[in-house]
Amino acid sequence: MQNISTYVKDNKQRFIDELIELLKIPSISADSAYKEHTFNTADAVAESLKKAGCDNVEICPTDGYPIVYADKIIDKNLPTVLVYGHYDVQPPDPLDLWHSPPFEPVIKPTDSHPEGAIFARGACDDKGQMYMHVKAMEFMTKNNCLPCNVKFMIEGEEEVGSVNLGKFVKENREKLANDVILISDTGMIAKDVPSITTGLRGLSYVEVEVTGPNRDLHSGLYGGAVANPINVLTKMIASLHDENNHITIPGFYDKVEELSQEERAQMAKAPFSLDAYKKSLDIDAVYGEAGYTTNERNSIRPTLDVNGIWGGYIGEGAKTVIASKAYAKISMRLVPNQDWEEITQLFKTHFENIAPEGVKVLVKPHHGGQGYVTPIDSVGYQAASKAYEQTFGKTPIPQRSGGSIPIVSLFEEQLKSKTILMGFGLDSDAIHSPNEHFGVWNYLKGIETIPYFYQYFTELHK
Amino acid sequence: MQNISTYVKDNKQRFIDELIELLKIPSISADSAYKEHTFNTADAVAESLKKAGCDNVEICPTDGYPIVYADKIIDKNLPTVLVYGHYDVQPPDPLDLWHSPPFEPVIKPTDSHPEGAIFARGACDDKGQMYMHVKAMEFMTKNNCLPCNVKFMIEGEEEVGSVNLGKFVKENREKLANDVILISDTGMIAKDVPSITTGLRGLSYVEVEVTGPNRDLHSGLYGGAVANPINVLTKMIASLHDENNHITIPGFYDKVEELSQEERAQMAKAPFSLDAYKKSLDIDAVYGEAGYTTNERNSIRPTLDVNGIWGGYIGEGAKTVIASKAYAKISMRLVPNQDWEEITQLFKTHFENIAPEGVKVLVKPHHGGQGYVTPIDSVGYQAASKAYEQTFGKTPIPQRSGGSIPIVSLFEEQLKSKTILMGFGLDSDAIHSPNEHFGVWNYLKGIETIPYFYQYFTELHK
Repeated sequence: MQNISTYVKDNKQRFIDELIELLKIPSISADSAYKEHTFNTADAVAESLKKAGCDNVEICPTDGYPIVYADKIIDKNLPTVLVYGHYDVQPPDPLDLWHSPPFEPVIKPTDSHPEGAIFARGACDDKGQMYMHVKAMEFMTKNNCLPCNVKFMIEGEEEVGSVNLGKFVKENREKLANDVILISDTGMIAKDVPSITTGLRGLSYVEVEVTGPNRDLHSGLYGGAVANPINVLTKMIASLHDENNHITIPGFYDKVEELSQEERAQMAKAPFSLDAYKKSLDIDAVYGEAGYTTNERNSIRPTLDVNGIWGGYIGEGAKTVIASKAYAKISMRLVPNQDWEEITQLFKTHFENIAPEGVKVLVKPHHGGQGYVTPIDSVGYQAASKAYEQTFGKTPIPQRSGGSIPIVSLFEEQLKSKTILMGFGLDSDAIHSPNEHFGVWNYLKGIETIPYFYQYFTELHK
Repeated sequence: MQNISTYVKDNKQRFIDELIELLKIPSISADSAYKEHTFNTADAVAESLKKAGCDNVEICPTDGYPIVYADKIIDKNLPTVLVYGHYDVQPPDPLDLWHSPPFEPVIKPTDSHPEGAIFARGACDDKGQMYMHVKAMEFMTKNNCLPCNVKFMIEGEEEVGSVNLGKFVKENREKLANDVILISDTGMIAKDVPSITTGLRGLSYVEVEVTGPNRDLHSGLYGGAVANPINVLTKMIASLHDENNHITIPGFYDKVEELSQEERAQMAKAPFSLDAYKKSLDIDAVYGEAGYTTNERNSIRPTLDVNGIWGGYIGEGAKTVIASKAYAKISMRLVPNQDWEEITQLFKTHFENIAPEGVKVLVKPHHGGQGYVTPIDSVGYQAASKAYEQTFGKTPIPQRSGGSIPIVSLFEEQLKSKTILMGFGLDSDAIHSPNEHFGVWNYLKGIETIPYFYQYFTELHK
């Protein structure tokens, strides 16, 4: 398979151009205004899979955005790899913080990517990383070196909680049957420190609404005499953490997996510079749960963050008003063993209980998913590890990620197979933020590494 | 002066039509998008004062919106009344809660106004109440019964803190010289319970900005490890009140005027139904500072309310982001003796002090003004009281208002004269709220009562 590196070199510009075309389509699944673009993106992905040599390319309708399926079955006796990815992207706002329009991709060098990075919403999460698999497939079919069977399942609702994927997977167990699931939707520690994500956090996302008086009121005539829903909401949210930044929801920590000192010692070995971390975020101090390091706080510990808050007058100038309603979007990142539906219920009950007299509280669950851990002694992990050794020249480090890919645990439950998370992005790639980008080097390195995974997995899978 | 009631009856429809025309112009001083409309409103007011028989009508430019001045000097030896009002209005949002467009006035009956009320932004605050004085002037000039000199000063920046009025007053002390200032920009207890406002609260309005990381972050990768500016802002705001709803800013209460038990007993005599109050706001309980009644909380006690809050993703659906910045607009209502600039400084210092490591805090003072109390034994108060007796058939009750008209104390300081607050609106008129309205009965009653004030003030002023 030596010729993969040559193939990548020879086709480098085309690989970049094709990805750029895909990035131009604003497939924002959270905003219905982009509905048509999101559907068009599914068509483009299907087309690219056909060109890559897949058979049975289908655009499977759902109640939301379609799931693109494709496969190439070369021998029923060979193992099957199921590749999962998503073609939808996060909303790009705040737009004014982008240095170039989010859907007009440009290539610029950065400190981490001196050879250039592609700037666009979805460049890394997940169009770029998903497309690495399409191009790796192209290489294997064009060069007749596909060692096993392959199936692709690319969805368009990952950024809104994969609301229709679960139903699709349950109804298509046979069609999706596989020996391992391969996903590139995570990151690695550094370009010279390859890593494989072995753990993901779960998620519970809710929206809360606090209603005080039945109309907006003059803050002079009513100020001090009625519950101000914004003041009340801030009190309620503030009370969700204690002075040690532990979450105060009763029962929240009951099932949290406590890592052993050895495991924590292992984690601590991953290269990490707190100063560089603070510098990159321009903060004078980190902040979080007492008793845990930064890398533990954002990977093995559950968290509660307000993702959005609004209420009252937020326009130009001043308005002396007491709003009738205040709102917040709140998400909790969960660790293995915490059940997201149970946590959502605990939150709802607690938040309703702490509402003071004089206001009404509504808690609307948005979506969620379970956390996940994959064993490093599995065939899939070993195959991935050897693939990285081939292309990076060093053994990757197993790493827990703070992010969530809710459907990973669903896959295991429904398809009875483990998922391998081969991520090629960097933390500094600003996914979910303005100026998201993906290093050209990382993109090409991913395309180069993936075929080795197929080779080693087929060899090791006996 | 008996013929005033006849005059009002005969001209009722015209008085209503003229006010409706004025209400159609969206003079939103807080929003620069309405700049032209706001300037046009000044022209319309000036025109109406000319028609009412004023001399020397001027549109005086300022660094912001112009101040309309007009006068009629009949005899230097007679007393002079200075009428103040404002032609700008509050922003109308939230628009979706209006039952009819805020700048397309309609007349509909309400429980408090069975004979009909004019629904429009500014109907009561303050175009309607200001225009009562224009029409009362028209009556007195047309019927040659103006008993004294009159000056009008109608500004266009009251809803944004009268930012340029202070300079104008300081530079025009001579021109504005008067024996009493008359303002209708407050309310009365009920249509059958006339009242005169003897106290106003001061105001300090600030905007705060909390900055965490230098960009929006993925809440999975960073959640729990960095200070989330929204979580931090809620903690900071929540800490501004203790468990008794006392404000925790050091020094905040140092100069607060404490009323005697007798004064509080007097206040308690004003007719008030807590059940009706809760019912009208659709709340199951009132809320406020421990140890004080509802009427005390919103008049003689200082308060702190969040008027607006925003940060993070507030669009449709879900976005798992940690925002870089969070904002809030916060106003404090102050009582006599509290200096608004001193309180603003106390707030700024305290808010900056309670910011945790990991965030930067910016406090931007918006505007403010001092509280005010007028003695009920003054000639102006007595004249107003007798005027109400004439038209309402009963003696008005002196009442403290929770609202603020910051310039009232400025007038006393610069022009050395007392202000009389003859308000004809009702609490239920929803000023600053959607569906603001002003009772037709109240509007006409105001026009009828004002000339009597001129008569009695001239008689009593020796």
